[in-house]
Amino acid sequence: MNLAIVGIGLIGGSVAIRLKEKGNFSKIIGVDKSESNQKKALQLHLVDEIASLEEAVKSCKVIILAAPVNAILQLAPTILDLVTDQVVIDMGSTKENILKLIENHPKRGRYVAAHPMAGTEYSGPEAAIPNLFKDKMMVYVEAFRSDEDAFELADSITEQLEMKTSYMNANEHDVHTAYVSHISHLTSFALALTVLGKEKSQGRIFELAGSGFESTVRLAKSSPDMWTPIFKQNRANVLEVLDEHIKQLQLLHQAIEEEDYDELYKLIKKSNKIKRIIK
Amino acid sequence: MNLAIVGIGLIGGSVAIRLKEKGNFSKIIGVDKSESNQKKALQLHLVDEIASLEEAVKSCKVIILAAPVNAILQLAPTILDLVTDQVVIDMGSTKENILKLIENHPKRGRYVAAHPMAGTEYSGPEAAIPNLFKDKMMVYVEAFRSDEDAFELADSITEQLEMKTSYMNANEHDVHTAYVSHISHLTSFALALTVLGKEKSQGRIFELAGSGFESTVRLAKSSPDMWTPIFKQNRANVLEVLDEHIKQLQLLHQAIEEEDYDELYKLIKKSNKIKRIIK
Repeated sequence: MNLAIVGIGLIGGSVAIRLKEKGNFSKIIGVDKSESNQKKALQLHLVDEIASLEEAVKSCKVIILAAPVNAILQLAPTILDLVTDQVVIDMGSTKENILKLIENHPKRGRYVAAHPMAGTEYSGPEAAIPNLFKDKMMVYVEAFRSDEDAFELADSITEQLEMKTSYMNANEHDVHTAYVSHISHLTSFALALTVLGKEKSQGRIFELAGSGFESTVRLAKSSPDMWTPIFKQNRANVLEVLDEHIKQLQLLHQAIEEEDYDELYKLIKKSNKIKRIIK
Repeated sequence: MNLAIVGIGLIGGSVAIRLKEKGNFSKIIGVDKSESNQKKALQLHLVDEIASLEEAVKSCKVIILAAPVNAILQLAPTILDLVTDQVVIDMGSTKENILKLIENHPKRGRYVAAHPMAGTEYSGPEAAIPNLFKDKMMVYVEAFRSDEDAFELADSITEQLEMKTSYMNANEHDVHTAYVSHISHLTSFALALTVLGKEKSQGRIFELAGSGFESTVRLAKSSPDMWTPIFKQNRANVLEVLDEHIKQLQLLHQAIEEEDYDELYKLIKKSNKIKRIIK
């Protein structure tokens, strides 16, 4: 049984490493529109060969979509048109638009929407690492819309990646990821822009940067090719959480401006409740 | 030669652990207004004994101030009044107000303002760890105002903590820390408040929280007892950077709202320059 990975970057490459180790697929075939990614994926032995999308769909039982979400939106209907009994696993970070787009496709049952909640701030085939997924959460979205055999095959891959699983509907998924993933990236991007702007006038500002700064800003290294489409696809939810986040910053600002340090203390104390969640 | 540590929390306790290992001081004496901290510091063997501030100043050659910055503001003039040839090392996170307050004190030369750029989101004696300071930056602020022997003694402690060193004036220090430390905490507090607020209505939102969320939000576990006074003491700089940060978030918001994805791409790409700084 062959497996194709469409988009051999951080996610696709890391899936490839793990599934190669497991050895349950005869061949792993890479599909990527970037020639440079194709070369790197071969050099790094992430995939056994490179093929066109059509060839890959024809020769593989499983097709994993790990391209940016705008590319998945374009590719998914085309791939489903070519599919007979293959299984297409969509590992993109947003789900509502894509699932709406294919909801009436005759091959909808062959499509499994699964979002692995794992990643780093790096991208491209060279960012792929073993165990990226270990003990992380695979979120199945509208799993009941997939054929049982298609879902079972996808789930066997989730098992090989050693992931936990969770089930959601598409809206719930997109709201939750806006709150616990997409907003974190926006705050990091904004923080980096803030400090880089100041460096111009002030210089040597980063000499003092410690681990706290590093951890809040590290996501600002993330690729615009991956993230611009995510914000586009999840626009309404992202705007909602961004509004709320700016409001919270304004409350902190107001407390400091008005020298209401009792209020500031209360806000910080309240935010400490995050301890319940983050060990 | 004895050494006193005033405020035996994360910073004071971690200094104590390291200096005990090094063994260059006959005794390490702890001063803390909290009885619970006094007990813990003894139980954890961070200090050899507990004393009152007056006793400690009398019996020690070096007095390290590692209390919250509001406490340092109150303690510093009192301690300098008691000092003959001792050395007082202020390890607080803000410097402009405190150095203005003591600038004409007859014992100003015995005071060394030094900010160790190190910490974690935890606090209290039980948060103290070995090697908290190793390879981190010790920033000396207005070092030229300290007597040479006082500075040399402080610097020998910095060496025992295995830290790098840097020199700044007070304003420069407070501006830089606002940009690379204080703002990171504010964004984390606001992010925690944003997501905790949503959890109330939505539930199970944290099921999807991955390492990206964790790293941007972990500082929100930081103590309000430490941070409220920092924001108070560095109010003007903190408000400036917070204004700028909110402005950057609003630019990202605007690009998404107006569906100007070219602009959004550019902003993210620009923020990626943080790669130059954060390896």
